[in-house]
Order: sequence, then structure tokens, then C-alpha cells
Amino acid sequence: MTNLASQRLPSAPSELRRLIRRGCWAGPTAGLARGYVQANLVILPADWAYDFLLFCVRNPKPCPLLEVTELGSPIPAQTAPGADLRTDLPRYRVYQDGQLIDEPTEITGWWRDDLVAFLLGCSFTFEDALAEAGIPLRHWECGCNVPMYRTALACVPAGRLHGPLVVSMRPIPARQVARAIEISARYPLAHGAPVWIGDPAGLGIADLDRPDWGDPVPINEGELPVFWACGVTPQAVALAARPPLMITHAPGHMFVTDWPVSRVERE
Amino acid sequence: MTNLASQRLPSAPSELRRLIRRGCWAGPTAGLARGYVQANLVILPADWAYDFLLFCVRNPKPCPLLEVTELGSPIPAQTAPGADLRTDLPRYRVYQDGQLIDEPTEITGWWRDDLVAFLLGCSFTFEDALAEAGIPLRHWECGCNVPMYRTALACVPAGRLHGPLVVSMRPIPARQVARAIEISARYPLAHGAPVWIGDPAGLGIADLDRPDWGDPVPINEGELPVFWACGVTPQAVALAARPPLMITHAPGHMFVTDWPVSRVERE
Repeated sequence: MTNLASQRLPSAPSELRRLIRRGCWAGPTAGLARGYVQANLVILPADWAYDFLLFCVRNPKPCPLLEVTELGSPIPAQTAPGADLRTDLPRYRVYQDGQLIDEPTEITGWWRDDLVAFLLGCSFTFEDALAEAGIPLRHWECGCNVPMYRTALACVPAGRLHGPLVVSMRPIPARQVARAIEISARYPLAHGAPVWIGDPAGLGIADLDRPDWGDPVPINEGELPVFWACGVTPQAVALAARPPLMITHAPGHMFVTDWPVSRVERE
Repeated sequence: MTNLASQRLPSAPSELRRLIRRGCWAGPTAGLARGYVQANLVILPADWAYDFLLFCVRNPKPCPLLEVTELGSPIPAQTAPGADLRTDLPRYRVYQDGQLIDEPTEITGWWRDDLVAFLLGCSFTFEDALAEAGIPLRHWECGCNVPMYRTALACVPAGRLHGPLVVSMRPIPARQVARAIEISARYPLAHGAPVWIGDPAGLGIADLDRPDWGDPVPINEGELPVFWACGVTPQAVALAARPPLMITHAPGHMFVTDWPVSRVERE
């Protein structure tokens, strides 16, 4: 993927976050700080934190937990102790009672002592690894978002949280499917191995050309659609339960951690 | 390991649990229902469940989560949907404010609607695998408990819960240490690979002959002490925080799940 920004922005996570904090970069983070783990962010009030944590534990493929902050702390002590989750992402989404009400570039004014932040692994990690192995990524080629679909598979519920598994789809040439599985399986904290290969009807997906999130991509002759558990799952499930306040990253505008990708590669 | 009981008691988990429920077996479960995953049990009030769950997530080696029941439910829906955690373990320990007050064979009278049960993976799973690979287990040979030690390594704290890592020690012949590591690494839900090999001083252990729990075992010429994260860790940490009520299995008297060991073997 060629990304103009990646040529101009610092490649060290801490320097990139400093620029973001100062308001110098409010764009997506794909292709930035290559080689470092990026993360989905979900912030919830303490009253909802147990259900959400349990949902993640019970559904590790869509919800791979990288870190949970201490109650009231916006500091990710394990993945980036020098960072502040209120200011160090390029863009956020703020939801009240399940409704999107704002898309700010920092959330200092929203922070409260009863909030907990969850950082979840993100597909960028395994996509970089797939690309390095010469496996084509159609949505990169098309310059669009990966297509995502609600499935007929139910997640394991937890307290007030329940809902379907959301998957992302990447068309892979038949001869490279096995390799794509092997490679992604090495990153359990980035959704791991696919959950389904081939016929989308088996997942209850009626039409690949009409994704529920992201953009449709063409599937060429000799390619199979390959489906991975998607980090949109926990967000969709949590929003459906309408918590009074929930803050997430804006799509594609992830948190860049200090962890090199090798740190989340399976032993 | 020869175990008289294993010759007389049923080998199917559900049948063994039925006998235990009827009060016909109140002994340890080592060697029973071979080939099935056994689990540590920790029951806490809802007010403590978030801290404990987060502690487990942050310290997966000593606290490998197999299952967390829904609030108020004693049914392990995932690992043994036909079981009841109030009656299906041979013996329990009941603690109030951190003090042991009872060791009953069932806890129906203690159960409350605000309790949550945690099932954590247990070393029996990888010990069976080590034994099958021809690796000697000294505490089996001696017919005693595995020696366990408090270390100078701090666990990652979570809320009110903090404390040292507890490890178990098994002396392994030098030429088999690598194999023992490979085999146990395949079972991340049973503490996984060792945390330390060799000199106990590096863990802050002063004297291997004086374990903090269990029994001392001799280390023969040509053997190295090998240390694994131990499931006593979460119990010790939780008790130190003195929750008003906490119920666990009695040492060695584990919960026998329906899961074959292959289910928790790493892909």
C-alpha cells in the first residue's frame, strides 16, 4: 500500500502520537508506524465494564483483548505507558444511549473517573503479515475499506451484551488460502485464523456485494472469499445494548501502541 | 501414576460428577476421568468479579480462564452444561473475610444470586501430557503434592487485587527440559510453558526444601528445577484482599469438565 502520509509522518509510535495529540494529524492510521500493533478502542462506564470484559473473554476471536485500563485511568500502562487515550487517537466517536452524537479529535472533556478503556487487537497486524507474504489484499488494491458483514452466528452472550458475529471478507487466490490461514493463525491477538472459507450462505450472508459496513470488493476467478472475525463485533454488540455513554475510535483511526508486532506473534 | 480410585470410579466426566454429587466420592480427582480437562474453582460476589476477571486477563499464565458463569448461575454452560458447581466437586473451601471457615462437600446452602464462578485451567492437563512423553514427575513418584513457592515476581495488579506470582516446581532431567517446555507450551489453558528454569534464587526463592504450599521433593543429580506459573496464585491474591465471601475447591479436589484435553491443545 502506498500511503503518502507514511512518508511524512514519524515512524516511531511515541512521536506519531505526539503529533496526533498536538492536532497535526486527524487522518486514518493504516500504513503509519509500520511494524507496531494498532488497536481498537472502546470506552465504557464501570457499570458496563464487567459485561464487556466478560464478552471479550468469551469471544476472543472478534474481541482479542490487548489491554484494559484501571478504573478512571486513560493511561494504557502495558501497551504504551507514555500515552493518553483521551488525546492520542486521531479521531473518536461518542455515543449516548447508542446514538452517535459527536466525532471529536480528542475526548478530554468527556472523560470521567468511572470510565474504563479497552484496547482490542486490530486486523492491520495480520494484513501487514499477509501482504509481506505476497498475498494480495483486494481492499488495499481498490483503495477502499474492507467489506464487513453481520452473520447468522451468535456470539456467546455476557450479561446485557449479545448479538451476531461480524466478519470481514478478503478474496484470496485458492492456492494461497492455506498460507493466509497459517499466517493469520500466528496472530491470535489480531483475530487469528479465519472463521469461514468459501460459500457466504453458510454464514447467513445473502449478498457479498452489499456489506453491512465498509465497501464491496470484486472476487476474481479462482479466488475464494475468506472470512475473519471482525473488531466491529464488540462495538455493534455494545451499541445495541444502548449504554448511556460509549466512546470508540473513529473507523480506521486506531490507537498506535508501543508494541512491535513480534510481541503478539504466537510463540 | 497408579490410583486405586481410578480403577473403580467411572471414567466419563458426567458419571463421575453424578457419584460426587450423591456423596459417594469426596477424595482428590488426580488420575480420575483421564483425558478430560480438570479445573480450579473460585467463587466470588459480583462486587469482586470484575477485579478478579481483570486480574485473570492480565495474568493469563497463573490464571488461565476456562469459563466464567453468568451472574448468579452455578451452571458451567460451556465446559459442562449438565453440571452444578454447588455439588459436583468432591470438596470445597469456604472463606469469610479471608479466613477459612469450612471445608464442606457441597455448597448449596452458601450459594447466592450475586455469586459468580470462575473455572481456571489446572496443571493436571499438562502433567498427563508430560507423563505420556516419558518425562518423570517426582511428586507422582513420591506420592505427595507438587511443591509450590511464592516468588519475588509481582503479578500485574487489577483493582484491589495484587500480589506475587506463585509457581510450582518439577525437577526435570537436563536432556528432557526442552521437551517438557515444548509439551507444556501446547497447553496455554493449563499454565503453558514454564516461567523459569534453573536457579531458584532468580525467582527470589531461598530454599527449595521449604515450599510455601505442597511438599518438598528431592532433585537428583543431572536434573534442573523447572518452574511453572501456578493456579494457587489467584486464590492467594484474592484471599489477601479479604473478600467477604470466597469459595474454592479444596486442594486437589478439582472440577472435572466435559472437555477432552485435545480441546485445549494449542492449534
